[in-house]
Amino acid sequence: MLYCVEMDVHIPETWSEEKLKDYITREQQTSQKYQKSGKWVYLWRVAGQYSNISILDVESPDELHQILTELPLFPYMTMKVKSLCKHPNAIRETML
Amino acid sequence: MLYCVEMDVHIPETWSEEKLKDYITREQQTSQKYQKSGKWVYLWRVAGQYSNISILDVESPDELHQILTELPLFPYMTMKVKSLCKHPNAIRETML
Amino acid sequence: MLYCVEMDVHIPETWSEEKLKDYITREQQTSQKYQKSGKWVYLWRVAGQYSNISILDVESPDELHQILTELPLFPYMTMKVKSLCKHPNAIRETML
Amino acid sequence: MLYCVEMDVHIPETWSEEKLKDYITREQQTSQKYQKSGKWVYLWRVAGQYSNISILDVESPDELHQILTELPLFPYMTMKVKSLCKHPNAIRETML
Amino acid sequence: MLYCVEMDVHIPETWSEEKLKDYITREQQTSQKYQKSGKWVYLWRVAGQYSNISILDVESPDELHQILTELPLFPYMTMKVKSLCKHPNAIRETML
Amino acid sequence: MLYCVEMDVHIPETWSEEKLKDYITREQQTSQKYQKSGKWVYLWRVAGQYSNISILDVESPDELHQILTELPLFPYMTMKVKSLCKHPNAIRETML
Amino acid sequence: MLYCVEMDVHIPETWSEEKLKDYITREQQTSQKYQKSGKWVYLWRVAGQYSNISILDVESPDELHQILTELPLFPYMTMKVKSLCKHPNAIRETML
Amino acid sequence: MLYCVEMDVHIPETWSEEKLKDYITREQQTSQKYQKSGKWVYLWRVAGQYSNISILDVESPDELHQILTELPLFPYMTMKVKSLCKHPNAIRETML
Amino acid sequence: MLYCVEMDVHIPETWSEEKLKDYITREQQTSQKYQKSGKWVYLWRVAGQYSNISILDVESPDELHQILTELPLFPYMTMKVKSLCKHPNAIRETML
Amino acid sequence: MLYCVEMDVHIPETWSEEKLKDYITREQQTSQKYQKSGKWVYLWRVAGQYSNISILDVESPDELHQILTELPLFPYMTMKVKSLCKHPNAIRETML
Repeated sequence: MLYCVEMDVHIPETWSEEKLKDYITREQQTSQKYQKSGKWVYLWRVAGQYSNISILDVESPDELHQILTELPLFPYMTMKVKSLCKHPNAIRETML
Repeated sequence: MLYCVEMDVHIPETWSEEKLKDYITREQQTSQKYQKSGKWVYLWRVAGQYSNISILDVESPDELHQILTELPLFPYMTMKVKSLCKHPNAIRETML
Repeated sequence: MLYCVEMDVHIPETWSEEKLKDYITREQQTSQKYQKSGKWVYLWRVAGQYSNISILDVESPDELHQILTELPLFPYMTMKVKSLCKHPNAIRETML
Repeated sequence: MLYCVEMDVHIPETWSEEKLKDYITREQQTSQKYQKSGKWVYLWRVAGQYSNISILDVESPDELHQILTELPLFPYMTMKVKSLCKHPNAIRETML
Repeated sequence: MLYCVEMDVHIPETWSEEKLKDYITREQQTSQKYQKSGKWVYLWRVAGQYSNISILDVESPDELHQILTELPLFPYMTMKVKSLCKHPNAIRETML
Repeated sequence: MLYCVEMDVHIPETWSEEKLKDYITREQQTSQKYQKSGKWVYLWRVAGQYSNISILDVESPDELHQILTELPLFPYMTMKVKSLCKHPNAIRETML
Repeated sequence: MLYCVEMDVHIPETWSEEKLKDYITREQQTSQKYQKSGKWVYLWRVAGQYSNISILDVESPDELHQILTELPLFPYMTMKVKSLCKHPNAIRETML
Repeated sequence: MLYCVEMDVHIPETWSEEKLKDYITREQQTSQKYQKSGKWVYLWRVAGQYSNISILDVESPDELHQILTELPLFPYMTMKVKSLCKHPNAIRETML
Repeated sequence: MLYCVEMDVHIPETWSEEKLKDYITREQQTSQKYQKSGKWVYLWRVAGQYSNISILDVESPDELHQILTELPLFPYMTMKVKSLCKHPNAIRETML
Repeated sequence: MLYCVEMDVHIPETWSEEKLKDYITREQQTSQKYQKSGKWVYLWRVAGQYSNISILDVESPDELHQILTELPLFPYMTMKVKSLCKHPNAIRETML
């Protein structure tokens, strides 16, 4: 099942450069692990904002929650989650 | 260039069944024409709502505007448009 | 999979008493059909408002969408849809 | 009487890992005490968010307030409280 | 149990003067019936707005819903409902 | 003249237990001083929230401002202030 | 006592030119009657919007409500009402 | 003096094709008259929406109001008006 | 030209009493300097809130910006700025 | 391609005067570098607010993102980004 998730990142201003880099490195590792597994299908940056729009294809809502909360920056992100389904006008069957 | 567009449809309550069917048929034709051309890459229904989330891959903002305003239901939709770019953590090059 | 759906009803002011009654009767039939099937687990009225809060247990987002759009009043309702999963503190296994 | 309560958790970024664990442990104890007593009927996680949706069955608004403020994380949660009543279309009598 | 209810009235612009007067007369009758019974404790106009703030003292959420939906203007009002309880600093016991 | 004031309290997370207790004690003293004088007519807790709804009967807007800003927690509260007047349907003359 | 009132006008699209002119004429008469009496102290247009910002100096909230509801366009305006008092930094005593 | 104005157009659904065309033609004439005079400096479409963002260079707030209200579609547009001034980092003097 | 400015003050909770007093004293000096010069025409407190509503009569948007940013508390205030012009129903010419 | 970007600046209250000056100096350098290159076409201050409205003319959404994130104050700004295209009523071809 597909979800569209919009993630807005809010880094605490008290973080040092190193702390931020460490988080960003680990964020990348977790994000890419799930992209490689095929669970995290798309990941785009919203132009001009510290936000991304992602498409995830998971087994269950519990798996979605497990993936997102595994992200090191999860506590510092505002999440908008939308559950997706097939649109009657869609001609593409892939990914659904 | 990629856009993520969220479209919420608000059908006027005065429309007859036929008028609505006619609009939906023509909406489908326009939507599928651009899906077939590769401009309208993804089209998903938001579960439980008369809304969709779409990914469009166009030449310019003008082309995006031309495609969306060609939709018969355009005057009856609220649009949220986000301009997308490459995310540093993304591993997939396709579609960008 | 579970969803929490909040539905706010907005009846067009142009409807006659009969039209409203007809819709309400058919709304009840559809709603109770899915309650009896076990898909629509709970249905509560929000006190003082023409709104309800519902818990649905469905096979997929597509099934959720199919049930909600089958409701005659669907075009006249604003839907807030939340995808639910297991809470680590929950002691009850039923319904999940 | 029934309430639907949506709780969004905002952990201060200054907390140490231990402090957070301590709070989470005590939060779980309070939450499960009231689940076992039958007052806290359902507790679900909203997928992808540090939020829950709960159904409580209490004697009075004062009891609801006493239970929620007993939660150690109460000062760090945004609460949306809805008072529920019987829906005319509901077929289930349990819990009401 | 006490509720604070804020009601914003939105009269359809298509109503004739007579229709409006008829509604206002019947609204007054219902409102005063419940004020006399002691259920509708206070009713104030918000200065400069077609809104009121009311305090109701009812047996249950179901009774609150029954009273408010009996108002002829209920379909034309936006309701904000807050369930009230005793404040630790309150010195007055009356009405609670 | 009457005001309905909704106060949402936001305690800074850096406060010690003692500091909080001291504030709450002094808050109570100020609040009860004005309740006893008849200026602060009603004070209710909103169930499940660190908020109250209050009815104040004062001589002027300046007196309202003086009372509210005398509260030790005033800098930590979000205030919604509504000026009230007589409702044409109200049957009770007291307090107005 | 002073109030700042922001009024946004929403003319129904079904009104004829004459009906609108008639309303605007009568609106002007009522507005100027209270300006001349000294109750409606200032009346400004918000540049580029069908809105005004007004300062009224009235005896009571009831008088404010009576004046505003006497305006023919009252049912077609959204009102934001703020009760004003003396600012400690203000050097001007007039109008207060 | 410069203003940035964002205009969102909401065409009533009851309008015929001719009525809409007539309005759009007259809207264009007024808009271009002020572009030619140099008052309406820039006019852009927001991609994917029936909205524009405009930069106007006028003598006074009254002139801004006069220009915008001369637009035939003014009653059907929601306006967001921002008064602009020189930015300390701006290197361009033209238009200011 | 006239502006209506609404200023909401948010004092950081880390400030000492002295720091706050120092800011308030300097705020008063700046505010009164411009009131005496006739630029800052009116200054009112919003009853019950740490906010003010002000009317300023300035030469240009740049002068408005210069005055407001000269206020010591400017970085701690949320500003809502409205550009005002003459209302067709206004009978008073003063100040415009 | 053109973008309209509205940037609201929120300086952390913990910053020293020097730190702020250093950021503002570097912000100016980056901003002026792109103004000189012709990418950052216009930069205006919103009167009375720590905000700006900017028009950027870039090659791609990625370039927009690269420019904005190069600003030292980027992490302390809220960005509203609008993708612009040609308006049918626009008479000016420059910059598009």
